Amino acid sequence: MSKVAVFGAGSWGTAFSMVLADAGSDVALWARREDVCANINERHENSDYLPQIALPHQISATHDPERAAAGADVVVLSVPSQTLRENLSNWATMIPPDALVVSLMKGVELGTLERMSEVISDVADIDPRRIAVVTGPNLAKEIARREPAASVVACVDDDNVRRLQKLTHSKAFRPYTSHDVVGCEVGGAYKNVVALSVGMAVGLGFGDNTTASVITRGLAETARLAVALGANPITLMGLAGLGDLVATCSSPLSRNRTFGEKLGQGMTTEEIVASTRQVAEGAKSCKSLLELARRHGIDAPIAEAVDAVIDGKLSANGLMEAFIARDTKAELD
Amino acid sequence: MSKVAVFGAGSWGTAFSMVLADAGSDVALWARREDVCANINERHENSDYLPQIALPHQISATHDPERAAAGADVVVLSVPSQTLRENLSNWATMIPPDALVVSLMKGVELGTLERMSEVISDVADIDPRRIAVVTGPNLAKEIARREPAASVVACVDDDNVRRLQKLTHSKAFRPYTSHDVVGCEVGGAYKNVVALSVGMAVGLGFGDNTTASVITRGLAETARLAVALGANPITLMGLAGLGDLVATCSSPLSRNRTFGEKLGQGMTTEEIVASTRQVAEGAKSCKSLLELARRHGIDAPIAEAVDAVIDGKLSANGLMEAFIARDTKAELD
Repeated sequence: MSKVAVFGAGSWGTAFSMVLADAGSDVALWARREDVCANINERHENSDYLPQIALPHQISATHDPERAAAGADVVVLSVPSQTLRENLSNWATMIPPDALVVSLMKGVELGTLERMSEVISDVADIDPRRIAVVTGPNLAKEIARREPAASVVACVDDDNVRRLQKLTHSKAFRPYTSHDVVGCEVGGAYKNVVALSVGMAVGLGFGDNTTASVITRGLAETARLAVALGANPITLMGLAGLGDLVATCSSPLSRNRTFGEKLGQGMTTEEIVASTRQVAEGAKSCKSLLELARRHGIDAPIAEAVDAVIDGKLSANGLMEAFIARDTKAELD
Repeated sequence: MSKVAVFGAGSWGTAFSMVLADAGSDVALWARREDVCANINERHENSDYLPQIALPHQISATHDPERAAAGADVVVLSVPSQTLRENLSNWATMIPPDALVVSLMKGVELGTLERMSEVISDVADIDPRRIAVVTGPNLAKEIARREPAASVVACVDDDNVRRLQKLTHSKAFRPYTSHDVVGCEVGGAYKNVVALSVGMAVGLGFGDNTTASVITRGLAETARLAVALGANPITLMGLAGLGDLVATCSSPLSRNRTFGEKLGQGMTTEEIVASTRQVAEGAKSCKSLLELARRHGIDAPIAEAVDAVIDGKLSANGLMEAFIARDTKAELD
């Protein structure tokens, strides 16, 4: 039996802990808040993030990162993307030297433009062969309800990716292996930007044709950047690209889509942040992805427009007009 | 100004006539029923198929195929796929010898296993360079409301595809050109089969992760067959593959998805046909596509399972179990 440490008890960190427990591991779940730990240990529930879901008894929570990491074969990181560097700099020395480190995070760091696996390698001085990512169409609440789901586990090292596959294969959760960490991470981060633009179309009152067109052009834009960064384009056609994108853009549970809907209804970023007290992750990663696209000379009209809407320099209506009004051309130009 | 004949006044034939009229053509719309013609000519409405939509006055309807076709520069065909051969055998001699013939149909003929463009070439003895297809994420009711939409016009002949692009480019409708007729037609037909399986998942109560996974695996299956038939795999990543698939699978307006939902709820094909008086097109094309896949040695697990559910040999629940229970493997195997 493996011992897995999961850092971050939000909805996805907690749901993924359930997958690990269902597949046979003991899970030590680190939570920032002590009341969340008490709730999990005493009532086997994370009522703030996954209300009314009974957690397996193989999951125990702790507020002490040292205790969570001690003796772990695998360390899973699931904190907000833009806080990873600071959090991990506190935890780096606690990670056992042979542990596989797994990122559940989907974002690109502002400033450094590093993907999450790059931040991990950088901050904790870990060989990329020991760093894996999990991605795919995995809305936390559905995973927690054990609905059938397919996922991608990716690592450049074949032994490690197979090990992670065994650790996550449960009756309801089906992990496919990949070696394309770059493609998985770019797909996961970019989908939040596309979900923002889909949300804007929905907020403006447009229907399924329009959102399907935005999703299609958004995936093409994602693939262009991913390939420029060294990814296999086929990864983006799979669960880590198309699958994750479609699930996020279809779901009313998606924070990024919801943020976009409010922008589409005419609210400003400031107004949305004031009312929800959070900025959607895609609004931050959008700036990083756009900067990466510029550095690599990649055409990224959706990210350009989403960034302009977020900054109040373009209306959501203007974004949609730009989307439809571009000169007609061959689709594959 | 061009004169276009459109054969078939269902919701898509009528909505596409609006696109043509908006882009500047005179449209002669042939309808099987005389009351539909009277309704269009006298009240500029097709109240059975597109209620409460005002049709442009450049659209006139006729019950006489000879009159519709006379002097047409372009002839558009929009009849049920499995009736095309019989219908077209009556109309073939009426088509002006230089007219471009455009298929709006999405299906594969039972028995012959011919795509719609092949049936056209076969029955009317028309050079494939004069045959085009229109496809993409184009739900008729949204097009009729002039919501922004992107589409694909495909023809092996470059002059003809550019001509068709000009004839369909309106303020709300953005046609991209393609030369990949095979990819467009296989994508259009297969998406109905995938929509049936997505409907089954919805009918069983599964959420967005599951449907996104089915869509992703369904598109991979579509691309495998399309490539075996000579298509460019990139076509399937675009509007004619992914875009059309996502729009159809997202829309509660889709007949194929709705048919699948009823199967997922436990109704039999006979019960659904008895209550709705129609079989979803995908239920027919599924058999043709499956036979094509077998002939070309292509693995088509979704079409296999959908066909078995339609024939009452497998439950929708059995289909979902088969989908999730297959051995884990590398995604791209």
